[in-house]
Amino acid sequence: MEFLPLPPAATPGQALEQIDTPALLLDLDAFERNLDFMQDNVRRAGLQLRPHAKAHKCPQIALAQLARGAAGICCQKISEAVPFMQAGVRNIHISNEVGSPQKARLLAGLALHADISVCVDDATQVEWLEEALRQADASLVVLVEADIGQGRCGVPDAASCLRLIDMIARQSRMRFGGLQAYHGGVQHLRGHGERRDAVLRANERTSGFLRAMDVAGIRCPVVTGGGTGSVEFDLESGVYTELQPGSYVFMDGDYGRNEWTGGLRFEQSLFVASAVMSRIREGRVVLDAGLKSLAVDSGLPHVHGRKELEYISANDEHGIVTVSDDERQPELGELVLLVPGHCDPTLNLHEELIGFRGRTVECVWPVAARGLSR
Amino acid sequence: MEFLPLPPAATPGQALEQIDTPALLLDLDAFERNLDFMQDNVRRAGLQLRPHAKAHKCPQIALAQLARGAAGICCQKISEAVPFMQAGVRNIHISNEVGSPQKARLLAGLALHADISVCVDDATQVEWLEEALRQADASLVVLVEADIGQGRCGVPDAASCLRLIDMIARQSRMRFGGLQAYHGGVQHLRGHGERRDAVLRANERTSGFLRAMDVAGIRCPVVTGGGTGSVEFDLESGVYTELQPGSYVFMDGDYGRNEWTGGLRFEQSLFVASAVMSRIREGRVVLDAGLKSLAVDSGLPHVHGRKELEYISANDEHGIVTVSDDERQPELGELVLLVPGHCDPTLNLHEELIGFRGRTVECVWPVAARGLSR
Repeated sequence: MEFLPLPPAATPGQALEQIDTPALLLDLDAFERNLDFMQDNVRRAGLQLRPHAKAHKCPQIALAQLARGAAGICCQKISEAVPFMQAGVRNIHISNEVGSPQKARLLAGLALHADISVCVDDATQVEWLEEALRQADASLVVLVEADIGQGRCGVPDAASCLRLIDMIARQSRMRFGGLQAYHGGVQHLRGHGERRDAVLRANERTSGFLRAMDVAGIRCPVVTGGGTGSVEFDLESGVYTELQPGSYVFMDGDYGRNEWTGGLRFEQSLFVASAVMSRIREGRVVLDAGLKSLAVDSGLPHVHGRKELEYISANDEHGIVTVSDDERQPELGELVLLVPGHCDPTLNLHEELIGFRGRTVECVWPVAARGLSR
Repeated sequence: MEFLPLPPAATPGQALEQIDTPALLLDLDAFERNLDFMQDNVRRAGLQLRPHAKAHKCPQIALAQLARGAAGICCQKISEAVPFMQAGVRNIHISNEVGSPQKARLLAGLALHADISVCVDDATQVEWLEEALRQADASLVVLVEADIGQGRCGVPDAASCLRLIDMIARQSRMRFGGLQAYHGGVQHLRGHGERRDAVLRANERTSGFLRAMDVAGIRCPVVTGGGTGSVEFDLESGVYTELQPGSYVFMDGDYGRNEWTGGLRFEQSLFVASAVMSRIREGRVVLDAGLKSLAVDSGLPHVHGRKELEYISANDEHGIVTVSDDERQPELGELVLLVPGHCDPTLNLHEELIGFRGRTVECVWPVAARGLSR
């Protein structure tokens, strides 16, 4: 009883139907096409790709992105960077601000082992970082985050931006690395035209910050930002040197609802494998995947490849599914693949990502940064 | 670089303000009062308490419940039971159905080491269980789940119930343990009166199943069900022998919105500790706790003890908070305690639960069953 191991959910060589559910699945063919397609497009535009690892939290995926030519990765939290560094990733941008002296010390410790950059939007963050870097005898690249319309983090105007750049220049342990200009809200605007217009408005704000730097004689080596929903416009924007998309690796129900009239469209590669655990009444089955296996903040999951099944309600560990065709009521134990509404927080619920090709399991990758939000 | 450890988020003896955020906090005084109050009330009603461990996923909490007199615990999934068994819990009811022969084999393996019971609502589940028990040379207690109005799992009528009981009686490895009668939907009805009426209607359905067993000469040793939202009515219902509440340990924003005019009310003991990471514009701060640190399926969190702060939007790792009183705008790095909307899936996001008393950390408990949804 000291040791009561759970059998693995899946092992390479198994058929998909043998996987114990709920489990997170990755269609490796679609996944590899997504990686290639994004890298090719970004390279052709003459930009750098720095994919966001908050979407996948999986070192094997980061290494696959770097092998295709990514310049490095983004992490959203300092602790999130640790498993990627342990896996050998040596160029990490923390696309976020540091909220305490304690976190600045953790970051300074990491900066001893890799090329690390981080964002600031406040003089206090610069002070905390400089002090932590001095204590650790480390150095760091610091970007100023600009608010280009989201109203979240980032300096609101060019004057504040120039003051922070000036302050960074006067520190001994840090170097000004450029501007982060990210607008999360535009990623999920449904219509192609409204999304393009919102991105253009955000780009105008970014250009305003860049003009002010230019007038002040400040060289801005990097302008980083953008995401999966805006990437087709970001490529041609003329403001970015580097793009940060994350979800393109997987796609999800929310991004699937965007209108994609442009040529840049990615494939759904991520699924939650669930099974029917009760089928007591006509027109309805209960799946074994609920709130603890998939994130519902961007809507309920939809059932992959089964038009007659609709996932209508998520409890902690149950999913209620209606069946509109009596002749296709799934059997008890039958595998049902779900497309989660939002990929990032769904990855964060799972220990492992099970890669398959065709109908056969090929690999099991740890979601090593799961839960690392500090 | 092979080994790059993260410092602990908290250590016993620290002040709350020194905790690295985001982190999950437990007010130990409120928690212990909740445990005592529930156990006392259930005992005075002459019933057994079998708290649901899906709410906390934490062996230390299960042991504290058992030490106060709980008859055992519930788990919602088979894999969830494993860390509790490893911690010495020997009486576990799986309050759910088994969805595959594979899961039946896992359960049969566990039944070699503890007193295990499980629910069925389908003859196929009985067949899978009997076969797995035979292979493992194990035995099991089996309850029939009855649908008392939720429309999720459970046999829909008394005739189906009696057929399943008869089938269980004819197996060699299992014993009929009683009826599970749970209605999740009634737990969250806001008004005290409407909640009471819904519970009474559900109880009438439970009584119907029990009368049919009585007429058929079947002894029903246990009737198990009920939850935190219905417990004050369940205690006096006359139908239950055993109650399964889980959330009373913590409470949450959703249960806090219920109207509690009865004497049975529990205290908020669970908080997500977050810190201000950006405060660039007037009337607004950004916290470091978002979708990956708290579940939003039952609404956004609210800020504990700070009426002037309202959490209005959750991104993956950011929480946007408006500040209605300019003079009380929190500082960068300031600790802000959040009450999550839904406790169960919030626990599932965290590795550890940090217990505090007054303003001092007392213990750090692993959320050992986190992510165990198989």
